[in-house]
Amino acid sequence: MKKRIAVDMDEVIADVYTKYLDIYEAKYGRRPAKEEYWGKKMKLLPGAEVLRPNLFEKGFFRDLPIMENSQEVLRELHERFDIYIVTAAMEFRSSFEDKYDWLQEHFPFLHWRNFVFCGDKSIIKTDWLIDDHVHNLETFTGTPIVFTASHNIAEERFDRVDNWLEVREYFKDIKSE
Amino acid sequence: MKKRIAVDMDEVIADVYTKYLDIYEAKYGRRPAKEEYWGKKMKLLPGAEVLRPNLFEKGFFRDLPIMENSQEVLRELHERFDIYIVTAAMEFRSSFEDKYDWLQEHFPFLHWRNFVFCGDKSIIKTDWLIDDHVHNLETFTGTPIVFTASHNIAEERFDRVDNWLEVREYFKDIKSE
Repeated sequence: MKKRIAVDMDEVIADVYTKYLDIYEAKYGRRPAKEEYWGKKMKLLPGAEVLRPNLFEKGFFRDLPIMENSQEVLRELHERFDIYIVTAAMEFRSSFEDKYDWLQEHFPFLHWRNFVFCGDKSIIKTDWLIDDHVHNLETFTGTPIVFTASHNIAEERFDRVDNWLEVREYFKDIKSE
Repeated sequence: MKKRIAVDMDEVIADVYTKYLDIYEAKYGRRPAKEEYWGKKMKLLPGAEVLRPNLFEKGFFRDLPIMENSQEVLRELHERFDIYIVTAAMEFRSSFEDKYDWLQEHFPFLHWRNFVFCGDKSIIKTDWLIDDHVHNLETFTGTPIVFTASHNIAEERFDRVDNWLEVREYFKDIKSE
């Protein structure tokens, strides 16, 4: 049986931060510099209370930018491993159709059988989980891989990748069965 | 840690067959008797081609009847075990919001963290899975329990429950940790 990689969606293949910065700039007329939010949660940015309510709006997750190189690298990995997209969508009822359509548009080589919308990821059984949220990695029983995001840069317990080229490199010599 | 029970939705807590029979009766003016479909797939019933397209319609999953005693028994089990509702919703894009609303209406004691919409259930890691579909039970790594439905009555490889009173009985003396 092929080995299995679970891949988180937001901040791993879908770029929420860039959309947050767009919304912030549209509201306040200036784009925060990376040093204003990097290394902490974006909600600590002054004025950031305008951001989170957008997560509950229809359409928010439909036009998120794609994380650089995620399509090419997942297409390659998909040939050797079983890839599951595992996203904690359940918090946001309005996100389900948007996330589904976004995945089908940008990752058409993945079958819907391999999409998982959940809440608590501790019931997911795959060989790896690539995720930016430490609480998901802490309860994972396979090999957790932290995908670098602003809020997790101090985390040192897990293997780390900064971007999708590093994901490619990570799996380069790993046997798929 | 509490032990975990994954519970399928359609034909386990949500009664699709009764709605199918309603649709059939509305179309053809007569309600099929149980002996016409029991023991086989309902799609083999003459005229059954009118049924399946309904699965893709908005609203189909929103007003399904609740399987008898499933609320009371799940409420009891929820106090001793962690319950996850795991449904292969991904085939039906239009079902996501309906299934979510149905669960929140009829099983308000379950948190959305414990809902899972997926395709392939083989990546679910819980201690038990109660499901009517044999293909889900075959790949499950915990203890599979077949919930009796028309299409699975010949199956003999798994523990079997016919209804929710039998589920209560099954777990009565099982330790929850």
